[in-house]
Amino acid sequence: MQSPHGAIGPHVAALDIGGTKIAGALVDTEGRLVARALRPTPAGEDGETVLRAVTEVLGDLRAEARWQGAVAVGIGSAGPVDAAHGTVSPVNVPGWREFPLVARVSEASEGLPVVLTGDGVAMTAAEHWQGAARGYDNALCMVVSTGVGGGLVLGGALLPGPTGNAGHIGHISVDLDGDRCPCGSRGCVERIASGPNIARRALDNGWQPPAGTAPTAAAVAESARAGDPIALASFDRAAQALAASIAATATLVEIHVAVIGGGVANAGPILFDPLRDHLTRYATLSFAAGVDVVPAKLGTDAGLVGAAAAAAQALRLEGFTLRP
Amino acid sequence: MQSPHGAIGPHVAALDIGGTKIAGALVDTEGRLVARALRPTPAGEDGETVLRAVTEVLGDLRAEARWQGAVAVGIGSAGPVDAAHGTVSPVNVPGWREFPLVARVSEASEGLPVVLTGDGVAMTAAEHWQGAARGYDNALCMVVSTGVGGGLVLGGALLPGPTGNAGHIGHISVDLDGDRCPCGSRGCVERIASGPNIARRALDNGWQPPAGTAPTAAAVAESARAGDPIALASFDRAAQALAASIAATATLVEIHVAVIGGGVANAGPILFDPLRDHLTRYATLSFAAGVDVVPAKLGTDAGLVGAAAAAAQALRLEGFTLRP
Repeated sequence: MQSPHGAIGPHVAALDIGGTKIAGALVDTEGRLVARALRPTPAGEDGETVLRAVTEVLGDLRAEARWQGAVAVGIGSAGPVDAAHGTVSPVNVPGWREFPLVARVSEASEGLPVVLTGDGVAMTAAEHWQGAARGYDNALCMVVSTGVGGGLVLGGALLPGPTGNAGHIGHISVDLDGDRCPCGSRGCVERIASGPNIARRALDNGWQPPAGTAPTAAAVAESARAGDPIALASFDRAAQALAASIAATATLVEIHVAVIGGGVANAGPILFDPLRDHLTRYATLSFAAGVDVVPAKLGTDAGLVGAAAAAAQALRLEGFTLRP
Repeated sequence: MQSPHGAIGPHVAALDIGGTKIAGALVDTEGRLVARALRPTPAGEDGETVLRAVTEVLGDLRAEARWQGAVAVGIGSAGPVDAAHGTVSPVNVPGWREFPLVARVSEASEGLPVVLTGDGVAMTAAEHWQGAARGYDNALCMVVSTGVGGGLVLGGALLPGPTGNAGHIGHISVDLDGDRCPCGSRGCVERIASGPNIARRALDNGWQPPAGTAPTAAAVAESARAGDPIALASFDRAAQALAASIAATATLVEIHVAVIGGGVANAGPILFDPLRDHLTRYATLSFAAGVDVVPAKLGTDAGLVGAAAAAAQALRLEGFTLRP
């Protein structure tokens, strides 16, 4: 099954399941995607219809000669997930509530072992294996986008947690009397730092999007680069919340790097400069200070690469090396 | 060296180093303290004088016949500690700054392996081995007293972190615009929930201690039990901050129990009832909800038992079982 050239294996079949698309790939031991498949997520349909899109993606992968080298299936899914029970309940896929995805994917994968993790954990596994967290034994990786997610590497190993949701930094409260979050809590990082909240706060304070642009976080970043004080202030507030959450993580579990990806990270220095500045004020204890804050390196393939890496770690697969 | 009855070993020699006293013990595989020693901490003296108190405690232990069964030394110390470099810099012992405690204790212990952890980590090891976190694979243990410290058990194992300070929950910010903390950050849990801050807040709001009592958190608890609304409100605010921090921990690393010890926990339902109530509002995600909140079981010996347990885990000592 394994050739000296790695041509037909071992591979991990990876699935990245989101509210918009369901992506699949065969991932080799170098983290390369040697085959791909894609379907739109029929997010508004019933659970079996959504599953059919998954099995079609798997069908495309099984039609590849290299499927012969597949040794496991790794799934990274929008959350919440429940890895302990093999079920998923993605917020944006109402047809799936405690849906037994692991069992159903196993049926559609010739009985290969299936490992489920949350998408934040998967992204973290990818950045640790191939990206900006490589070489760090203790890392927080975050996705700051429509929501705010994340994952942790501690002591050199991914920490999925019992249910695959660990590192869910978007829903820790950094403002215990703050605004109500849709999750029910108050002052969550996501409520302050997500893209839609950056735009909302700017609009609330009188910001006007540049002519011809929609009122998005990217447009706020554009205004901020042009020196608009309201736009700068909205990014500064997001940076402050992110800094407080990174400091909390460093204080709780001793991380040495915070990797930030997602659309909001594309703002670059508009986000990263104030974030690093605030971080010096929140991470004050010697062991928590000095965390490197860096942009993510992997793009949209991170979910697939990471689903494979997380499965490889969980199953202790030979040949796949998380720390090459 | 080992007898079938465990009479002369294996033992771990444990040191619990605080700003007031330096305690030592020989700890057996059942977590029993089979010999003890104690010296006051000469906290205002120079570093070598403080060290002498430590070596005197070790000398008392070495004079015991059971020292023959000692296989390691475990140190739990007031922080900050730096386990990576074997040094300690306890806030209340100014003579020790990056003091090479591990090397000096090793010299005084016939070259036994020496393991250093922070006192919050040690307390956590003790509660996991013998106390209220026993049987839980994922736990946060906290000490709420003059300060607020803590430690984590994840995946069944103690998480000391690279420097031995992980779980330092007192200095995560739950109020990013809040009051300045002596650590330099703002809105730290300790700044809201420690005993002195519970008393300060009550006094600021017009509370009067019961006749003949000092204005301590214990006195605030006494007033709260008698129905004083200002006293109740001060405990409620502390409980809110603790709840936000426990929820943050559950969201970040998936814990199933939060064990709370220290003097403030002696307030009992005055603290625990509002804490559990607030926790339902901050820990909203399915995987973070339902954390058990319970009082610590071990008393002042927790530091010694835990220093031994932490050393046993780090050295993978046979016979010592963290999860009996």
